[in-house]
Amino acid sequence: MMRAPATVGQRLEDIDTPALVIELDAFERNLRTLAATVKDRPVRVRPHAKTHKCPEVAKRQLAMGAVGVCCQKVSEAEALVEGGITDVLVSNEVVGAQKIARLAKLSRRAHIGVCVDHADNVAALEASGAKLDVYIEIEVGMGRCGIAPGEPALALAQRIAAARNLRFAGLQAYHGRAQHIRSMADRRAAIDGAAKAVHRTEELLNKHGIECPIVTGAGSGTYMLEVESGAWNEIQPGSYIFMDVDYGRNEWAAPLPRYEHALFVLTTVMSRPAADRAIVDAGLKASSVDSGMPAVWQRPGVVFRSASDEHGVLDIASGAQPPALGEKLLLVPGHCDPTVNLYDWYVCVRGGRVEALWPITARGAVY
Amino acid sequence: MMRAPATVGQRLEDIDTPALVIELDAFERNLRTLAATVKDRPVRVRPHAKTHKCPEVAKRQLAMGAVGVCCQKVSEAEALVEGGITDVLVSNEVVGAQKIARLAKLSRRAHIGVCVDHADNVAALEASGAKLDVYIEIEVGMGRCGIAPGEPALALAQRIAAARNLRFAGLQAYHGRAQHIRSMADRRAAIDGAAKAVHRTEELLNKHGIECPIVTGAGSGTYMLEVESGAWNEIQPGSYIFMDVDYGRNEWAAPLPRYEHALFVLTTVMSRPAADRAIVDAGLKASSVDSGMPAVWQRPGVVFRSASDEHGVLDIASGAQPPALGEKLLLVPGHCDPTVNLYDWYVCVRGGRVEALWPITARGAVY
Repeated sequence: MMRAPATVGQRLEDIDTPALVIELDAFERNLRTLAATVKDRPVRVRPHAKTHKCPEVAKRQLAMGAVGVCCQKVSEAEALVEGGITDVLVSNEVVGAQKIARLAKLSRRAHIGVCVDHADNVAALEASGAKLDVYIEIEVGMGRCGIAPGEPALALAQRIAAARNLRFAGLQAYHGRAQHIRSMADRRAAIDGAAKAVHRTEELLNKHGIECPIVTGAGSGTYMLEVESGAWNEIQPGSYIFMDVDYGRNEWAAPLPRYEHALFVLTTVMSRPAADRAIVDAGLKASSVDSGMPAVWQRPGVVFRSASDEHGVLDIASGAQPPALGEKLLLVPGHCDPTVNLYDWYVCVRGGRVEALWPITARGAVY
Repeated sequence: MMRAPATVGQRLEDIDTPALVIELDAFERNLRTLAATVKDRPVRVRPHAKTHKCPEVAKRQLAMGAVGVCCQKVSEAEALVEGGITDVLVSNEVVGAQKIARLAKLSRRAHIGVCVDHADNVAALEASGAKLDVYIEIEVGMGRCGIAPGEPALALAQRIAAARNLRFAGLQAYHGRAQHIRSMADRRAAIDGAAKAVHRTEELLNKHGIECPIVTGAGSGTYMLEVESGAWNEIQPGSYIFMDVDYGRNEWAAPLPRYEHALFVLTTVMSRPAADRAIVDAGLKASSVDSGMPAVWQRPGVVFRSASDEHGVLDIASGAQPPALGEKLLLVPGHCDPTVNLYDWYVCVRGGRVEALWPITARGAVY
């Protein structure tokens, strides 16, 4: 694990770079905004810890009313349980003997849920002796994992209901593609379609005497649409705590709040080779570019044009305040989740001073 | 640091996934191929450790005749020196008080070089008391860092020559853009242009009584062109040890050898939602997609179409052998360097068995 690039009490401008910075005031406002939007709604909040990979963040989400968290990997769940989180849903299929053995072990320490989309996987989970809440992932437009809604889901639910130790906990219905559909109207249409698939499957299950306690899913880009549809009673927003450039490009309108940018990469201008160009010490190993380039924060006319492994190239418009050699700038990551996965520490800043250092204990937890 | 996903002696198919695998036979052939191509040439080899971030790999490069290694970050240099490497060039500018203080400290433990492209940076290095080999980075077509060749470089060399503790060691001239120009002829033209800039600068330095002991640069995609030009006497190839999909798309012809794929991401088929689609447990947090998708190794008709954070979507052509649920596949990363930076361990495999586990101690060393 890399040592932290900062110390508590240090000024923002003295932090070594690149560093992953949480602006605590904005982060805490984001936590409160989520709670306010779902207040008095018949929905549980289970934030997605794949975004932050950090028990310290999870604890603050629980303090705001979350029932637990979710994550995508057994190794993430292990890090979260190790960090004191007692209710974790792996919102993903867990396939393979070693992974299932680790999940079984974890299920004796904490309340663990998992998703399935295949009867063979149910059999393997059953054989492991794991004590699990099992959710059927249904395909609702994402084109990734998930069994077809309706009859195939019913057959799988009957298989789970017959399994020792496994409890059929409900449906996982996540429309990932919908999160970044830019227009509100198109996002609503996508979620309406997913809601129909959920309703149809739930009615079929009920008709066959299978109760479906939880329908879980939804992300930061759509979750109020799921809530308003009435088809979901648990939501899994992740990125709302941090936001990023990609989410920033969405249209935001009621019922969805626009969250604030609370996650930044602090970077240093390391070369000024031309009047219209500056080079910073944060490249694609410091800010993931899978969803586009980071943005330079509050520096009009200064644009992050391209990234190589360890360098970022900034274009400086004529008339813009030129970044000086050695100056530190804040970048908003293009995509928060994989950017977080590059760092071992959050440097938590309030009022321009480092208030805390939080270890990202599930960084690199891919298996 | 994540625990290793494998144990020594384990069979390849029993390794937990995703895992970063080195195929040792191919890796060692790549090491030997590089040595063979530069045998009897007037050139030193200083491989780039930004690719592998691992002292175990660096030691094997030194054993094949390398004079030392290079890297891009002070924190990488720290990890390499900590791992027993005694000659490290930071082939990059180091800007900022903390970084320079760390570099100065390191320069008392090992033979350290660094690049500069600005007189202010030379002054800061001098003031730190660091004992350094200083290389002037000249711009030779990359459009990133680097001072202009000729007079500006001469003035900077004179500034270095006048500085206490600093030794003017030569020129860094790296044409990064040329590495992935697909045609050999175009790559040669790019390197010919860079060679002219090097010659012109070196002649000017000599005319002013400044010796230029080393001209360093070159990558895996061009290095024999630099060697043949006669302008460089040190090369910095990095990716040759592993190769990746992006380098695989280059045209390879004499004098450049085509290196073998020796780095893989082992992944598990975790969902088979449709006859023409399989989902694997390696997404963009397991194989960097900045230079394109990974390739499925030796499975004709099975194509890695897209990656989300934790999932990869494979298209299965009709007639192709369909991957079974739970089956493990090897992926060739799209870009080796940032993929390595996602992992804490190399799982080193020979003849289908795990022979060693090498910690990637400079993983996450961005500052």
